[in-house]
Amino acid sequence: MPTIDGARVVADLRRLADFGRYKTGVHRPTYSPEDVASRQWLAEQFAAAGLDPVIDGIGNVFGRNRQAARRLLVGSHSETQPYAGWLDGALGVVYALELARAFAADPAGAGLGIEPVAWADEEGHYGNMLGSRSFTDGLTDAEIAAAASRDGKPLRQALADAGYAGRPYQRLDPSRHVGYLEAHIEQGATLETAGQRIGIVTAIIGAWNYWVTVTGEQNHAGTTEMRRRKDAGVALVRLATAIHDRFTAIAGPRTVWTIGRMLLDPNAPSIVPGRAEMQVQFRDTDTAILARCEDALVELVAAADRAGPCRIALTPLSKSLPAAMDSRFQAAIAEAAERHAPGLHRHMPSGAGHDAQVLARRLPSGMMFVPSIGGVSHHWSEDTSEADIVLGAQVFADAATAILQNEVD
Amino acid sequence: MPTIDGARVVADLRRLADFGRYKTGVHRPTYSPEDVASRQWLAEQFAAAGLDPVIDGIGNVFGRNRQAARRLLVGSHSETQPYAGWLDGALGVVYALELARAFAADPAGAGLGIEPVAWADEEGHYGNMLGSRSFTDGLTDAEIAAAASRDGKPLRQALADAGYAGRPYQRLDPSRHVGYLEAHIEQGATLETAGQRIGIVTAIIGAWNYWVTVTGEQNHAGTTEMRRRKDAGVALVRLATAIHDRFTAIAGPRTVWTIGRMLLDPNAPSIVPGRAEMQVQFRDTDTAILARCEDALVELVAAADRAGPCRIALTPLSKSLPAAMDSRFQAAIAEAAERHAPGLHRHMPSGAGHDAQVLARRLPSGMMFVPSIGGVSHHWSEDTSEADIVLGAQVFADAATAILQNEVD
Repeated sequence: MPTIDGARVVADLRRLADFGRYKTGVHRPTYSPEDVASRQWLAEQFAAAGLDPVIDGIGNVFGRNRQAARRLLVGSHSETQPYAGWLDGALGVVYALELARAFAADPAGAGLGIEPVAWADEEGHYGNMLGSRSFTDGLTDAEIAAAASRDGKPLRQALADAGYAGRPYQRLDPSRHVGYLEAHIEQGATLETAGQRIGIVTAIIGAWNYWVTVTGEQNHAGTTEMRRRKDAGVALVRLATAIHDRFTAIAGPRTVWTIGRMLLDPNAPSIVPGRAEMQVQFRDTDTAILARCEDALVELVAAADRAGPCRIALTPLSKSLPAAMDSRFQAAIAEAAERHAPGLHRHMPSGAGHDAQVLARRLPSGMMFVPSIGGVSHHWSEDTSEADIVLGAQVFADAATAILQNEVD
Repeated sequence: MPTIDGARVVADLRRLADFGRYKTGVHRPTYSPEDVASRQWLAEQFAAAGLDPVIDGIGNVFGRNRQAARRLLVGSHSETQPYAGWLDGALGVVYALELARAFAADPAGAGLGIEPVAWADEEGHYGNMLGSRSFTDGLTDAEIAAAASRDGKPLRQALADAGYAGRPYQRLDPSRHVGYLEAHIEQGATLETAGQRIGIVTAIIGAWNYWVTVTGEQNHAGTTEMRRRKDAGVALVRLATAIHDRFTAIAGPRTVWTIGRMLLDPNAPSIVPGRAEMQVQFRDTDTAILARCEDALVELVAAADRAGPCRIALTPLSKSLPAAMDSRFQAAIAEAAERHAPGLHRHMPSGAGHDAQVLARRLPSGMMFVPSIGGVSHHWSEDTSEADIVLGAQVFADAATAILQNEVD
């Protein structure tokens, strides 16, 4: 059974965190100089592990394995959210690198091929999971041409600046891989709270997003009598409250919903807001529950619009579909977890989106979590204990071994 | 009876609007080069009207009248809100200039002294009614030293750049003036809606302002289960809704309340807000109603804080007290309005704050409104018909005459 080198895993994670270090975390947005340098470093590590490194036209870094007949694709994303944690996707990328090395070094790994990958822009600096969608043919040229960062830099310009312009895009060949396996930090506190060390992901949630626009009438807050007002801010907070009330009543046991972004215009203390906007998001692994929430949202917005005096409009922004993880892959991870951490693992959905939900449309896919200290994520203070990092790598290696052996048998 | 020159009033208003012209309005923040130039121009007009012009240490422009024994102080402010209207306070300043000229030219005005004034920074670019508060001794050196614009420019630097540093501050000598009279656009649609042309201000509202801070816990919007959340945004919209409901129940007939400014932090769609803030403002001419609203606000915030899971704190920001206008001044304006626009005038409170509420603490004060087209204010499209501008100037002159004659008799 391939054995991972725990000290090497931690050392590689620390080295990768040097690219864009910020306090104890990392600031490494997709296609930034630090991100480009880190992808080059990853390609060199893949080469040192005996693989053929390829950085493709969207920035995905592959370590192609010439030895094996069929291969397991293993990885995650390597860029970070702004001023975020040192592990996040980097953990899964370094696990993949370590698995490739461990399999190459172990006689039992002969013929079992690990192909590590570092996807580009899972974090959405320029688009929606660009790297894994490009690989699975889910990304169109039109979308690439239209994509830009929040501060307006076109994706094509970013790719040219990174030196990726003109490179071919690597595409999925379903006959090449038995499946896809991804490790990631949990990004929540479920494992920590339960005192557990490994999460076996059952499904990745779908996230549905909507933009609500309230149009009222901007006025002087002193001279405009209440009965004459069309206060967009009042309409917004009343609607938001109604949404929270209704969703509390109709949600499933693991549904989450969030109004994370609200804007008043002109947002001045002595001006009745003439316009107000908010983004409404809900997530679940059950499409029927997502549809029920959407029905409720549409109905609440329509009722608020009818009630007046403001006009209220609802615009769908994006809908990712829930993705179930392969049951055999779940079983392989659970068996490996029971071997190394008996009783300290659980099956759980992923509330966050991951490249695995994109891959799952084309390949059997599995996902494994390690605990996040305090549940912190997308913040520079994010962390996981070294013991959990090392344990996770070995469980992950055992699971990959079992998946490849099952496939070969 | 002094007769105003309507064409001259309109021409002077148009000339004054050249300083900082923006579309059909004006962008002339206090102490900007355009504001400083316009104050110089006003001083020259005061001199041309036979007055001694004085620009004092805070930027107030006075036209001192040597002829009269006792005088009526007449004016308003001359700077504007950003990208705002051409009339607003400028209307009252040009009315004051015109009254000074009309009184000087009319034999019946002999011995009746108009002293025009253009106050500085009623619009609050650097502080709270700096000019009129400086004049009435309500502005301390400490406040001047601490004051700065929103973008951080210290008031002292602005005064030095304007050329006002080291000039003496003009202070109120109560024996010099029989009172203070101010004209302004209504900034609301009450007059227009009623088809009326003159508003006689009964009282200027007091405005009480509070800052509400909600402290929750910032988290990932996908991985954090609802029961574990401390969503500051949810707490904010629920509290805002409760405030709107309660105030609807306890408000007086003319109370207005506004939540014009709300902030979520970090205000990102996929992050549970860890912090949320809003400004709550209410206005009334009745201090008892203001106190009732404050009691309700304190109680609602305390209840929301107790209910959890977020902590909610209330910080008072400012409380201006309502100011009643002098009843004899109201009668003089009403009599003049009835003469020139029979039946087309009304007594009304001012929902906006004005320098007259500062002056009213020290001198008998009166205020007159002309209609705002569409009720628009603090926007470059603000306007008043020429006929209303001219009518207002004559009513204002007649009222000033009556006030001074009553005083002399």
